[in-house]
Amino acid sequence: MRPSGRKLDEMRAVSIETGFTKHAEGSALIKMGDTHVLCTATIEDRVPPFIKGSGLGWVTAEYGMLPRATNTRMRREAASGKQGGRTVEIQRLIGRSLRAGVDRSALGERQITIDCDVLQADGGTRCASITGGWVALKLAVNKLLKAGDIISDPLVDPVAAVSCGIYAGQPLLDLDYPEDSEAGVDGNFILTGTSRLIEVQMSAEGQTFSRDQMNQLMDLAEKGVSELVAAQKAATA
Amino acid sequence: MRPSGRKLDEMRAVSIETGFTKHAEGSALIKMGDTHVLCTATIEDRVPPFIKGSGLGWVTAEYGMLPRATNTRMRREAASGKQGGRTVEIQRLIGRSLRAGVDRSALGERQITIDCDVLQADGGTRCASITGGWVALKLAVNKLLKAGDIISDPLVDPVAAVSCGIYAGQPLLDLDYPEDSEAGVDGNFILTGTSRLIEVQMSAEGQTFSRDQMNQLMDLAEKGVSELVAAQKAATA
Amino acid sequence: MRPSGRKLDEMRAVSIETGFTKHAEGSALIKMGDTHVLCTATIEDRVPPFIKGSGLGWVTAEYGMLPRATNTRMRREAASGKQGGRTVEIQRLIGRSLRAGVDRSALGERQITIDCDVLQADGGTRCASITGGWVALKLAVNKLLKAGDIISDPLVDPVAAVSCGIYAGQPLLDLDYPEDSEAGVDGNFILTGTSRLIEVQMSAEGQTFSRDQMNQLMDLAEKGVSELVAAQKAATA
Amino acid sequence: MRPSGRKLDEMRAVSIETGFTKHAEGSALIKMGDTHVLCTATIEDRVPPFIKGSGLGWVTAEYGMLPRATNTRMRREAASGKQGGRTVEIQRLIGRSLRAGVDRSALGERQITIDCDVLQADGGTRCASITGGWVALKLAVNKLLKAGDIISDPLVDPVAAVSCGIYAGQPLLDLDYPEDSEAGVDGNFILTGTSRLIEVQMSAEGQTFSRDQMNQLMDLAEKGVSELVAAQKAATA
Amino acid sequence: MRPSGRKLDEMRAVSIETGFTKHAEGSALIKMGDTHVLCTATIEDRVPPFIKGSGLGWVTAEYGMLPRATNTRMRREAASGKQGGRTVEIQRLIGRSLRAGVDRSALGERQITIDCDVLQADGGTRCASITGGWVALKLAVNKLLKAGDIISDPLVDPVAAVSCGIYAGQPLLDLDYPEDSEAGVDGNFILTGTSRLIEVQMSAEGQTFSRDQMNQLMDLAEKGVSELVAAQKAATA
Amino acid sequence: MRPSGRKLDEMRAVSIETGFTKHAEGSALIKMGDTHVLCTATIEDRVPPFIKGSGLGWVTAEYGMLPRATNTRMRREAASGKQGGRTVEIQRLIGRSLRAGVDRSALGERQITIDCDVLQADGGTRCASITGGWVALKLAVNKLLKAGDIISDPLVDPVAAVSCGIYAGQPLLDLDYPEDSEAGVDGNFILTGTSRLIEVQMSAEGQTFSRDQMNQLMDLAEKGVSELVAAQKAATA
Repeated sequence: MRPSGRKLDEMRAVSIETGFTKHAEGSALIKMGDTHVLCTATIEDRVPPFIKGSGLGWVTAEYGMLPRATNTRMRREAASGKQGGRTVEIQRLIGRSLRAGVDRSALGERQITIDCDVLQADGGTRCASITGGWVALKLAVNKLLKAGDIISDPLVDPVAAVSCGIYAGQPLLDLDYPEDSEAGVDGNFILTGTSRLIEVQMSAEGQTFSRDQMNQLMDLAEKGVSELVAAQKAATA
Repeated sequence: MRPSGRKLDEMRAVSIETGFTKHAEGSALIKMGDTHVLCTATIEDRVPPFIKGSGLGWVTAEYGMLPRATNTRMRREAASGKQGGRTVEIQRLIGRSLRAGVDRSALGERQITIDCDVLQADGGTRCASITGGWVALKLAVNKLLKAGDIISDPLVDPVAAVSCGIYAGQPLLDLDYPEDSEAGVDGNFILTGTSRLIEVQMSAEGQTFSRDQMNQLMDLAEKGVSELVAAQKAATA
Repeated sequence: MRPSGRKLDEMRAVSIETGFTKHAEGSALIKMGDTHVLCTATIEDRVPPFIKGSGLGWVTAEYGMLPRATNTRMRREAASGKQGGRTVEIQRLIGRSLRAGVDRSALGERQITIDCDVLQADGGTRCASITGGWVALKLAVNKLLKAGDIISDPLVDPVAAVSCGIYAGQPLLDLDYPEDSEAGVDGNFILTGTSRLIEVQMSAEGQTFSRDQMNQLMDLAEKGVSELVAAQKAATA
Repeated sequence: MRPSGRKLDEMRAVSIETGFTKHAEGSALIKMGDTHVLCTATIEDRVPPFIKGSGLGWVTAEYGMLPRATNTRMRREAASGKQGGRTVEIQRLIGRSLRAGVDRSALGERQITIDCDVLQADGGTRCASITGGWVALKLAVNKLLKAGDIISDPLVDPVAAVSCGIYAGQPLLDLDYPEDSEAGVDGNFILTGTSRLIEVQMSAEGQTFSRDQMNQLMDLAEKGVSELVAAQKAATA
Repeated sequence: MRPSGRKLDEMRAVSIETGFTKHAEGSALIKMGDTHVLCTATIEDRVPPFIKGSGLGWVTAEYGMLPRATNTRMRREAASGKQGGRTVEIQRLIGRSLRAGVDRSALGERQITIDCDVLQADGGTRCASITGGWVALKLAVNKLLKAGDIISDPLVDPVAAVSCGIYAGQPLLDLDYPEDSEAGVDGNFILTGTSRLIEVQMSAEGQTFSRDQMNQLMDLAEKGVSELVAAQKAATA
Repeated sequence: MRPSGRKLDEMRAVSIETGFTKHAEGSALIKMGDTHVLCTATIEDRVPPFIKGSGLGWVTAEYGMLPRATNTRMRREAASGKQGGRTVEIQRLIGRSLRAGVDRSALGERQITIDCDVLQADGGTRCASITGGWVALKLAVNKLLKAGDIISDPLVDPVAAVSCGIYAGQPLLDLDYPEDSEAGVDGNFILTGTSRLIEVQMSAEGQTFSRDQMNQLMDLAEKGVSELVAAQKAATA
């Protein structure tokens, strides 16, 4: 039995509320159980220097956690004067993952920034950020399409992410915080709506795992992502 | 007529949703029209060095704005490596204001940190932070009272805040962003439930005002704060 | 009786020595009793980006305190790697206050930076900075007028500032440090030579005050500022 | 054909020179073709706060690149005032990977810091750092064993790493820089001497990959790591 | 002829005003012509960690320049977020130089910090800081002696400094700014009252000099320092 | 007898290996006994703003030490977020010294950056950096000459540096770390191949020295530099 009482291959309840804030070109509050992330998309008519003049667009992401999103208050990163290593890793992952689903040439020379801010954390915030971030991105792109600013949809295949891990020797889908903090191996799996792989990160802390276990986690991830993609579609229908 | 269509002495719709996040000892999402601020209270059994051993408690605050809380995306302060001058001013004001309503000796040697994070901004975020912050503080203190950690209630008089300003020569209550950005004089008024003054800040940019105008703004503020205190009471009843 | 032995509405001795340093376009050493602030004005033929091309000028300020201006040595802000919240608040106040007395269109597209460096502190350094900063500004503007760089005087109404507070239940004018550190309520009042209000900041720490008390402080402030404006005029005559 | 002219599953020439510097408790200069990394191990009789008193040891890593290790000079991180996101990611990975091969209880309450400084870069610097870092760690641990400071060897299974990627549709082992910069998918594989997995990171930039391709890369990685482990053993024999 | 009209071996007018500020344990405003530096001494009953428990005292220094001490306004170091390389070099030199004249064992385990803040600059500010800093140090030490906190005078030999340089092929004593900025070689000479050498720094920018020239500068420096030591003695008599 | 067993005027063994890394336009690993510094030269077609359009070139330097170059591990400067005062002093000295041997007009409007990274330290790292840095500079300039990018050689007179000091009352040439840490007076002497002086820095910590001693150190330095210049010539022949 998992601490959460869920079956080994059972996801948490997923909800995606679009339009949670009014200023952004796209916004969504994604809830994966008790993990709540507010994702907003901002369109800007500029791109980073390294692609200026290339005709290609850019999608990037920033990630933050409210100080009391967690059980114990964490120091505010703005107050400590820098983003921690974990934050930097996560926001690079979000950006890279979302870009894999985008035809940057169809997007044209503009940048979309996805801000993912964790209002409440209970494990899997980076995966929720990717899944919810895709929804915000989708809403923003729809606005561009509707306005005629772009002609063909640059979002070629939806992107979603889920964590899996090995807990008490068992492979689990969609770890919550109590599970994650006890798992010896955990991984983040970013896939597309057609089950293509974008990013796979499996990591053991102070132990190791086998290729068989790796394949079990991959199987779970494929199941989980297909459910998430369905939820994304429902939210943006 | 105000841009908002409200009467000169009419507040925006106020709503205060308690328990918006689950980890904090107290939490409230306050909405003043389109200004939405998430306030959380964290209790810690330590105090700043300068009051260690004094038997007194401390209440402090931090303030932040999500990058896309505003119409144009602002740079994330954690990414830019420091809190801006405006942020520092605001969080000092929130902490100072809340302390004025607290009997720090009844609180005992513990610290309560109020985090105010603006999810959506439309003017008056510092005032909303104070008003909502008081609610989060109240909920956290109630937890201490219920647990028997403190005996007498340290919250002696509720604290709430409202902005007023002079717009097109007229004194207005509770400025929203379009009003605030055009007002020649604006002020923040922090008062208690018994209309005692805690902090008054009136400021003209590139112009001046008279004592009569100052008194008109004070009158509006008294009206506004009394309505806010009623909303606080309803939310924590 | 006040700790200083002064009457309730009695200012400290004021002296303003112009030309204290030779490089600046304007410089003044202002002494309010034992509070000594060196104010310099620097004219530059550039303006901040947000007003470029507007034809308007800009007046801004920076504030600092020598490490041993105070009774106990404070850490040098340059060594600690940033300006503290108090410094940031003060220099924003100085700039905003001085701008209220300036016709920025008559100044033309140039920036005047007022540096206020506290050589010795005994309370009221921000007010002394504003009052002395106005003198440095005046001297710099006179240089521009004399050189024919501007035609009409952009300084429309002198700006000066004084602190008042409630000490042992009594309203006091021009607090020195021992009075200020014991005052339950203190305020900074920035007014013009014609008694128009520019900025009013009244603040209670851990207590509250009434509108009557607020009005008593305002009365004292009007008296104090009129004496300061006379001293400014004498210094720049 | 690969740009390097190597066969698809052919590693670059590997050399590991131990004792390259004299002060460190262990040091090794590892060369993977033109990628040269100096790895040193420092033993300290202290552990991070979160394991103080636990009886467990700690292994951590830092990573740096000399400014002109690369074809174009990069800004020195010490001069720019912070470690970039890439550096932070890499040094966290090195530390986590090495710890997977360590029995921290046998190590006892001490910390070993592995510094990995890239003298010359040609792709695969993080993998070379892990492989060479293990050698420096081994040498330092041998010193502890010889001195009788620890009794049983805490290094339970050697750790090595190699990168693989998909280039022009072909799976390649041990990418050099020209191959890496053109590869659509690349991965870092950290395994033990007994082919157990520690960390798997596969990442596509702007595209996707299949589970079959993932398995091909895993096969290559197992081959590469077994060769690296042999080289580690030869160097520390 | 020098730009200043002085003879080759002629110092600028020197004045040292003690007690310029009231809070510091020692303070002096030194004027070397138009170079004006405020030096204060702060005594603290603590020493840096590396000499704790040694029974020895410490003398250290910090250096700063007001933004408009110079002809063109310089950015405030507190605002730019760090002390520049020049500032760091200078304050290390001041501390090291002053310590050479101090019997740290007679001083006992306490630290004296000398703050040197340049109010107006016209060349030679680091030398003026050392010469004036010694006076502030002397005044502070006298206070300790008078209070009986120390028994024997730890100031064994006065320390003073002067700059010399080669200008238009001629060796000059005590360069002012116009001379310094045109000198091909310039040096700072820190000596004691008995003409012993503490620190000699000679430096050519884009050219070289001979040992003969070096000796000529040394001769000038000995003359200059003996005059400065006389001024120090007069000021503290 | 010196701790090193060397004669008073005996240098450590010097070796200079050119081409130690492949990417830089010039590179050299200099060994002065156990002090090993990797020096690389980077040519860029840009100059600092203050000489833009002057037709003159620029030579600058950066300096770093690997964390475990020393007997005890030092904190990595990139991790601590800034270069220490010692680092800043040293790299300014290296740049200034090298420029003294360069005809910046013959170099043309380009910048050469010399990176000096200490792989292993045993005293005299700044001097080794200058001597080795000159070799890297020479190699880079030779490349420019060979390519026809410049016509006449801008390197007019070789630059080398050596440290000397007074140890147990005796003047010593080329201090290693054990000698340096016990020397009461130490100096760095930067001279040209024709024994012209570029920079002389002599410094006593907590004591003083005489002009006679200064001259003895100068004599030693002349001997040492002439040997270093011979080694430079051999390495670049």
